[in-house]
Amino acid sequence: MQSKHFDMGIVGLGVMGANLGLNIASRGRRVAGYDPDSAKAHTFGERGAAELDAASGAQTAGSARLEDFVNALKTPRVLVLLVPANIVDSAIDSLVPHLAAGDILIDGGNSHFPDTERRLAKLAAASIHFIGMGVSGGEEGARHGPSMMPGGEAAAWERVRPLLEPAAAKAADGAPCIAWIGNSGSGHFVKMVHNGIEYGLMQLIAETYDLMYRGLGLPAATIREHFTTWSQHQLAGYLIEITADILAQQDADGSLLLEHIRDAARQKGTGRWTTEAALALGIPTPTIDAAVTARGLSDFHALRQDGAKRFAGPLPATQQALLADAGLPAALEGALQAAMLLTYAQGMHLIATANAEYDYGLDSGVVARIWRGGCIIRAALLEDLSAAYARDPELGNPAFDDALSARLGQLQSELRRVVAAAATAGIPVPALGSALAYYDALRSPRLPANLIQAQRDYFGAHTYERLDREGTFHTQWTHGSGA
Amino acid sequence: MQSKHFDMGIVGLGVMGANLGLNIASRGRRVAGYDPDSAKAHTFGERGAAELDAASGAQTAGSARLEDFVNALKTPRVLVLLVPANIVDSAIDSLVPHLAAGDILIDGGNSHFPDTERRLAKLAAASIHFIGMGVSGGEEGARHGPSMMPGGEAAAWERVRPLLEPAAAKAADGAPCIAWIGNSGSGHFVKMVHNGIEYGLMQLIAETYDLMYRGLGLPAATIREHFTTWSQHQLAGYLIEITADILAQQDADGSLLLEHIRDAARQKGTGRWTTEAALALGIPTPTIDAAVTARGLSDFHALRQDGAKRFAGPLPATQQALLADAGLPAALEGALQAAMLLTYAQGMHLIATANAEYDYGLDSGVVARIWRGGCIIRAALLEDLSAAYARDPELGNPAFDDALSARLGQLQSELRRVVAAAATAGIPVPALGSALAYYDALRSPRLPANLIQAQRDYFGAHTYERLDREGTFHTQWTHGSGA
Repeated sequence: MQSKHFDMGIVGLGVMGANLGLNIASRGRRVAGYDPDSAKAHTFGERGAAELDAASGAQTAGSARLEDFVNALKTPRVLVLLVPANIVDSAIDSLVPHLAAGDILIDGGNSHFPDTERRLAKLAAASIHFIGMGVSGGEEGARHGPSMMPGGEAAAWERVRPLLEPAAAKAADGAPCIAWIGNSGSGHFVKMVHNGIEYGLMQLIAETYDLMYRGLGLPAATIREHFTTWSQHQLAGYLIEITADILAQQDADGSLLLEHIRDAARQKGTGRWTTEAALALGIPTPTIDAAVTARGLSDFHALRQDGAKRFAGPLPATQQALLADAGLPAALEGALQAAMLLTYAQGMHLIATANAEYDYGLDSGVVARIWRGGCIIRAALLEDLSAAYARDPELGNPAFDDALSARLGQLQSELRRVVAAAATAGIPVPALGSALAYYDALRSPRLPANLIQAQRDYFGAHTYERLDREGTFHTQWTHGSGA
Repeated sequence: MQSKHFDMGIVGLGVMGANLGLNIASRGRRVAGYDPDSAKAHTFGERGAAELDAASGAQTAGSARLEDFVNALKTPRVLVLLVPANIVDSAIDSLVPHLAAGDILIDGGNSHFPDTERRLAKLAAASIHFIGMGVSGGEEGARHGPSMMPGGEAAAWERVRPLLEPAAAKAADGAPCIAWIGNSGSGHFVKMVHNGIEYGLMQLIAETYDLMYRGLGLPAATIREHFTTWSQHQLAGYLIEITADILAQQDADGSLLLEHIRDAARQKGTGRWTTEAALALGIPTPTIDAAVTARGLSDFHALRQDGAKRFAGPLPATQQALLADAGLPAALEGALQAAMLLTYAQGMHLIATANAEYDYGLDSGVVARIWRGGCIIRAALLEDLSAAYARDPELGNPAFDDALSARLGQLQSELRRVVAAAATAGIPVPALGSALAYYDALRSPRLPANLIQAQRDYFGAHTYERLDREGTFHTQWTHGSGA
């Protein structure tokens, strides 16, 4: 590799690394790649030769020799690390001896934000500018335009911006789906919440499908038509689109592939991290939590086969009554939209709170805007959320925007109808149900938490507050007065 | 204090320490107490003189001088630490220099189980036998008979058993509500799950109250009558009883005290720990999770006042229809029973999994038996759970016991009716709803997780499994086929 010839380097030439490298190169850049697997390194160069327009200056080359790779980069160097989360530390440790003060290292993987914060401190000591960057969009997004969420050493941003910005997805208004998020681990925090929201939306879609499939007994083709229609209106978005695609995908024998897929959902942990972060900050994210739990429950496959035999369900007549409700499929569209909007609201509320608590210096409106394209949760609803932040940049929970409140008010009766029908018919809807409970709690001026406070004071002398005066109070509760 | 005169010592003479010390002494023991606050130390001796029968050998004495206190104990010493969780480490550090090899130190506070495991290792190095013991029952329980859950250094159990067992609550069959739980941090793990279940039950009761109060508009006296009646049948239990008491407790002006208590529930963290432990082990505890989140949501008091103005709810006619349903109050009893049973099942499933994963060597049946008396979650349902473990000691999730499955099958239609009514009427029931969704997921041979797996493979090439053959599969999904 020619010394100081390449504009930037990619460390780790797996699916995400190779495709992001080719994407950046395709904007007229020279991108070097490193992977200890020399076949992957070789392929990276070959793909560049085949897929890129050399006349534009675009070029890729790969090496399995770390020193050659590092020396081939222009200085101060810009390197993007795209390796599995569990080897980020060892990858950094092998890189650092080859780097110089002022070089910029970007972790583009799904690192947990506290790890990013720890690495920032460590690399600052070596005068290396570190950026933790969430990247969403999967393989296709990486190659043609992902949504990118960089945060950390702000001083490095203007140097890397011209390299990354052209490679980002564009929103409908042409704005690039990348922006500086903020300090510290903010980039990876925001990406984690993105994934938590993704868990919530996927579970909501799955429950909606289940209500049509098991509940209403609709054929897959009809369910697909519903998703296709919905994808053309307010529910428009990537996950709705691919659901329609999945409902058309045939297996080798012409049957629906979906029917043969094992109903045990896997997870890589970012949903759980979101729930944990929300617990730590005391922010309610019940729909994300329910989605994480639902994936866990799905994995108890053998237990559920036993349960199907032993646990009684509704009488067939009840399910027939559900079937006879011709308005239910239409209500599902509104219910899904309300629940999705409430899931984004939970995630954005968490981000706003983390921003205040961890001093990220981020702008919630910017987050909503760069999620409009490229990422897995991109959807028309993000245009609506962006508009809400344009009206009030300080909006903590976007459900409290006037227009979105009004929208939820219009949709809530459909969400009620669907949750009640599912409860009656025996279809589990933990995410839809949690979204409704969240909405109803937020519109309750008085919740029964006064009873919980009374119980805590009764058995543990934990004291309570009063609505009519300041202070904390304890009562000697009279046992037996209730008998 | 007389040297080597006392059978055991209590470190920390707050509400729990002083009362547990008096309780143990009342069984004919000499109990020394230590507290740096000399007023508390003094009171501990005074209360013993006033409350105990000296002729039985019962005696208490308190000291604010640590060395005097330690020297006053018979050797090998037995000490029970009852201090706030955040000062356990410093309390141990100040004690250890005064102790000798073979002494037994019991942490009777609400320590987090990983802390107990760490302390076990540290104290083993000093040849001090350490026991982490959950204690439940509040002030009353501590004084007259708590449920106690000791775990850790098994070698120490037979030495402390004669001191603690007489002080424990007795179940209806006379069995003491204390037993050796198992290795390591198992005592505090089990106590943590006890508290998680407690969170779930309290939230379920609060939602049931809310449905009667806000939903049906019943007066407190009528709601109290329901709880009183329920406390005489299958729902019998401490939390139901105290709820009836609370619904009769008057404020100074004769009004119901409950109405003046601020509806913002506090938490000390054991519920959240349970959710975190369940996430780490992949065990679904959705009703406990929902209860933790509901407490969090209740604390957003100002936001809810705004939400009450901006978020539309059901039309008044819908709520009138709910009111007209004369059968709903009766359905609430069955719904609450089903949901409570499912909450115990979630907690016991978590304990059984932790036992296998962390090698605690515990017996789930023993846990159910010692929860039958003394603790906050004691209830008739624990007799039923104990009977289930007597039938099958290896029962992982007690909902899968034949008798309990049949009971759930009888109650499920009432749970459905209540959840559907709440959704329709706009009363948030996150815990009742989560219990129903959990039940319906457990009886679903097929869940829509196949769609989630298809989505994950579509956007992230995460692969999926099939129902009809072994292996993992990846599909090149056809975009646009759904349009």
